[in-house]
Amino acid sequence: MPAKPRIGKLVVIGVGLIGGSFALALKKAKMVKQVVGVGRSRKNLKDALRLGVIDLVETDAAKAVADADLVLIGAPVGQMPGIFARIAPALSPHTVVTDAGSTKQDVIAAARRHLGAHFPMFVPAHPIAGTEHSGAAAAFPDLFRDRNLILLPQQETKASALRLVKSAWQACGSNIVKLDATEHDEIFGAVSHLPHVIAFALVHQLGKRRDAKRLLGFSGGGLRDTVRIAGSSPEMWRDICTANREALVPLVDGTIAELEAARDALAAGDGETLEAMFRSARETRSRWLIKNKK
Amino acid sequence: MPAKPRIGKLVVIGVGLIGGSFALALKKAKMVKQVVGVGRSRKNLKDALRLGVIDLVETDAAKAVADADLVLIGAPVGQMPGIFARIAPALSPHTVVTDAGSTKQDVIAAARRHLGAHFPMFVPAHPIAGTEHSGAAAAFPDLFRDRNLILLPQQETKASALRLVKSAWQACGSNIVKLDATEHDEIFGAVSHLPHVIAFALVHQLGKRRDAKRLLGFSGGGLRDTVRIAGSSPEMWRDICTANREALVPLVDGTIAELEAARDALAAGDGETLEAMFRSARETRSRWLIKNKK
Repeated sequence: MPAKPRIGKLVVIGVGLIGGSFALALKKAKMVKQVVGVGRSRKNLKDALRLGVIDLVETDAAKAVADADLVLIGAPVGQMPGIFARIAPALSPHTVVTDAGSTKQDVIAAARRHLGAHFPMFVPAHPIAGTEHSGAAAAFPDLFRDRNLILLPQQETKASALRLVKSAWQACGSNIVKLDATEHDEIFGAVSHLPHVIAFALVHQLGKRRDAKRLLGFSGGGLRDTVRIAGSSPEMWRDICTANREALVPLVDGTIAELEAARDALAAGDGETLEAMFRSARETRSRWLIKNKK
Repeated sequence: MPAKPRIGKLVVIGVGLIGGSFALALKKAKMVKQVVGVGRSRKNLKDALRLGVIDLVETDAAKAVADADLVLIGAPVGQMPGIFARIAPALSPHTVVTDAGSTKQDVIAAARRHLGAHFPMFVPAHPIAGTEHSGAAAAFPDLFRDRNLILLPQQETKASALRLVKSAWQACGSNIVKLDATEHDEIFGAVSHLPHVIAFALVHQLGKRRDAKRLLGFSGGGLRDTVRIAGSSPEMWRDICTANREALVPLVDGTIAELEAARDALAAGDGETLEAMFRSARETRSRWLIKNKK
């Protein structure tokens, strides 16, 4: 006998990989009765409907959220201020709002500004999952299984709202972790946003060469893995990087400094310095991989 | 009925992932009768013997190559000049020598210098295969299947020597491609050596932070794939990078320039420039992946 759905109406604004997988996971867990999808691309919403990711399409976010139990905003972070402003007047008092944005200080500030009296019902969150694919067609219910879900409740956040969002992500199989927004943005600037900038920069460098086609024809698994994440959505990553630029600029400067040190050692034929850098990096990676296996 | 072995005695100098896998592939193809392993690490040679990668251990490279039909040098490229010098006086006239070095201009120059009259029996080669693991225990016979094998015959190279090396790699399942040494070093500087430098630099940057442990505990699949190759041998990559520094220094400078452009766009909040860079990179990656699927 399936458990009684705890969420009557879920509205997903931005039915992409994250929003779509959240809907599929809650459906699989029989925790949701109806999913309404809102988005900019008609084709994507059609896909989502056809694939059973959502049950209804609504083009107007304000109309969609009427009487919703939970609203998940899965849109690129750059769109969140506009979405908060649009839905705020239409929210029922009981409606819990959450997001899946990759940056948190900016999203929380925008929610505080635009949701006004409804802000205590907003639970900022960030699922640490994703692939280089985007869109509803890439969604799958197990995307969040055994992955971290960062919750960032604010002082004002209502305990009941927090409980609902937490239990939804637990139903997705996520491991819940609480973080402060500043620390969150610094951590994910380093382990996620920076690697994306680097991967995009490397492929951009190679792709603009006249011999790019011939060159890339000779590449192997090393380059393929190193630049996998350069297949990610340019718009989404533009938004993430600009939203988190305060943390990201010094991080990119740090990589430039590392590459300058490597370059100088190379130019001087200083193999010792290079090897020390490579060896220390390998040790960090091994320690970290061993730790992750536990 | 097994085919008659074409190689009576194969000597592998440096029984690592590449040298060991070459031996295993030729054994599997029943193309070799006896494999003699030479190396610096007794433990690694013992592993190789125990795992059936080699049949005999010899610590002295000069003794080992006596009456060999084929000698494969699988040692880091920085050791090649010393190995060529050591084996040159001990080579029988019929012995074919080949290598698996990741850089070619330096290896060919060293062979020309140290092999002297035997240089026409040397066939420079580079198998485009590998993993982030090293050592004989990581070797497996199918490592080279359907992977490119670059052959770089020189004007002096004897046709019979070229034929033997070519047929050995074909028996490993490799796809043979001929390249000029300068073009080889430029291509692999860009698609292999540069990504390694970048992966090492990024992990080095993160690993030296005080909060490295906590930080890396939050990393996901993006960072993991981006830095997989930072698990590679520091010594081997020190040698490759310093050997190919003429091609590599301008390539690292190119990456620094890309990162500086990204940094400036970030600092200026210029999302348009960032998005154009990300979009162009994603298109390059997609074109290249589609091409690779054929």
